[in-house]
Amino acid sequence: MRAGVVGLGLIGGSLLWALRRLDYAVVGCDVDPEARALASDAGFDVVSSPRELDGAEVVFLATPLPALPGVLAQLSGRTGLLTDVTSVKAPVADLVRRHCPRARFVGGHPMAGKETSGFAAAQSELFDDRAWVLCLDDDTGLSDWTRTARLVCALGARVCPAPSAQHDAAVARVSHVPHLLAAAVTRLAADPLSRTLAAGSFADSTRVAATRAALTAAMCAGNADSVRAALHTLRADLDAAEALLDPDAPEAIHDWLATAQHHRLAWPPTAGSPQQAPITRAALLELGRDGGWVCAVSPDGDAVTTVRPGPQVT
Amino acid sequence: MRAGVVGLGLIGGSLLWALRRLDYAVVGCDVDPEARALASDAGFDVVSSPRELDGAEVVFLATPLPALPGVLAQLSGRTGLLTDVTSVKAPVADLVRRHCPRARFVGGHPMAGKETSGFAAAQSELFDDRAWVLCLDDDTGLSDWTRTARLVCALGARVCPAPSAQHDAAVARVSHVPHLLAAAVTRLAADPLSRTLAAGSFADSTRVAATRAALTAAMCAGNADSVRAALHTLRADLDAAEALLDPDAPEAIHDWLATAQHHRLAWPPTAGSPQQAPITRAALLELGRDGGWVCAVSPDGDAVTTVRPGPQVT
Repeated sequence: MRAGVVGLGLIGGSLLWALRRLDYAVVGCDVDPEARALASDAGFDVVSSPRELDGAEVVFLATPLPALPGVLAQLSGRTGLLTDVTSVKAPVADLVRRHCPRARFVGGHPMAGKETSGFAAAQSELFDDRAWVLCLDDDTGLSDWTRTARLVCALGARVCPAPSAQHDAAVARVSHVPHLLAAAVTRLAADPLSRTLAAGSFADSTRVAATRAALTAAMCAGNADSVRAALHTLRADLDAAEALLDPDAPEAIHDWLATAQHHRLAWPPTAGSPQQAPITRAALLELGRDGGWVCAVSPDGDAVTTVRPGPQVT
Repeated sequence: MRAGVVGLGLIGGSLLWALRRLDYAVVGCDVDPEARALASDAGFDVVSSPRELDGAEVVFLATPLPALPGVLAQLSGRTGLLTDVTSVKAPVADLVRRHCPRARFVGGHPMAGKETSGFAAAQSELFDDRAWVLCLDDDTGLSDWTRTARLVCALGARVCPAPSAQHDAAVARVSHVPHLLAAAVTRLAADPLSRTLAAGSFADSTRVAATRAALTAAMCAGNADSVRAALHTLRADLDAAEALLDPDAPEAIHDWLATAQHHRLAWPPTAGSPQQAPITRAALLELGRDGGWVCAVSPDGDAVTTVRPGPQVT
């Protein structure tokens, strides 16, 4: 099997290593000669244009979102399997519909960020036991989804089926809004006294504010609608919390905090027992909505092994 | 020298260990027989009522804020040095003025939380190189402040001088608001799909949501005015960020994020060179405002060794 990977940063580079582990013939592609040189030195075939990946059975798009339109324009004739790893899914699906209408596209997103970036930080085990969303929209071919899911399971990841819109709403809540809040708290506490008094809770809650601003900007702006919706929900809930702040009755805000404490202590969810299930669109979507994932696809592509979260215990 | 410590949790217990290391004769006090038993088993003298600490040259109040009025009522006749470790300072100063008008009070707050709590988690080195605010208000005696500062420096901490109101505003920004945001993000992402997709940025930004709700409630409600003010500033800044979210122009929000990235990469502040300085109220307040701290008090109590943050480099 031949696979192409466009964009040789942390995720793309890790894909090269992980696909090689699976005995794929992999070709990497990057506009940056330096990234190509690193991959080439590691023994990978590299090309400089996505057009040269046409023979690959599957092509992974691992560039940042702003680079995607240019890459897709060069893949406009593609009819084979095409997937991506971008942190926003509905806008990418729109781009693919526009630029590559004949490609068999399955949008994807591995939840596998690291603080380091670039090919040098790539590692074949980056995806082990990480959630990896594969989008199942009305126009996604079920057999395309299943083929992509089999490969992503083989990479070690947990395949979470979800419509693009549900993915975008969820990552706004668990990643994009936390990035904006980390920046906002850092900006709030920029005076010298605050910076000297800041300790553990500041350190943790602002860690991702150190992410390269251009990356965070692409991620949050690219998912603007969902980020905005999540910010509105958050703001309303913070307003409720603020109304409960009473120095003469600290217990007033207790239950609001205790709900969060309960949910946080029970995170991450545990894995329930694996189950065999036939592959239907409805069953996969229900699995994803329940926080479950696919960990294997049967060789004939008719059944999946699924795992749901265990009961939430604190 | 004799020192008393009321409240034998993490901070109070650590004070017992650290004061013993300084050869203080220490007496611990707690209403909870279990906490007293733990301290007694560790070889400390323990009493059950604050009244029994009257002979101590210095008494540390290390109970949670809601327990303070009851403790202070029992120390109402005290004329000696009195300090506390509560995370809010203006309301405590008011309580002390009301209940112990003759005590020589210096409000304090070590920035030394841990995820564990209770006497069992206490350790003598908990305060090493941690910021420890000692409040310098208009009615704080400068010699009382200096005596307390000498002791706190000996405990290993960095003594930050600040008016109570400035302390309260700063900890709202670096600790109380982050605690509320951690809870709000956890509540926002409580659906099963979000919980399964949540990864590093969620983990870090919500870590303190696992804190015991009663502790966070006491902390945030006790500092309600400053928390509210900080939330308002944060909200206005988030509104500004939201207005900059444009999928067609991700660079619009770049500078907003880059300011945060710059500040976060330069945190924590480095320590500049130690300097000798005479002790004046104005110089100490300026030092604190600049994010500086006192690391030693001269034996005669006339001079301090001060450290300011080094230049902010990213």
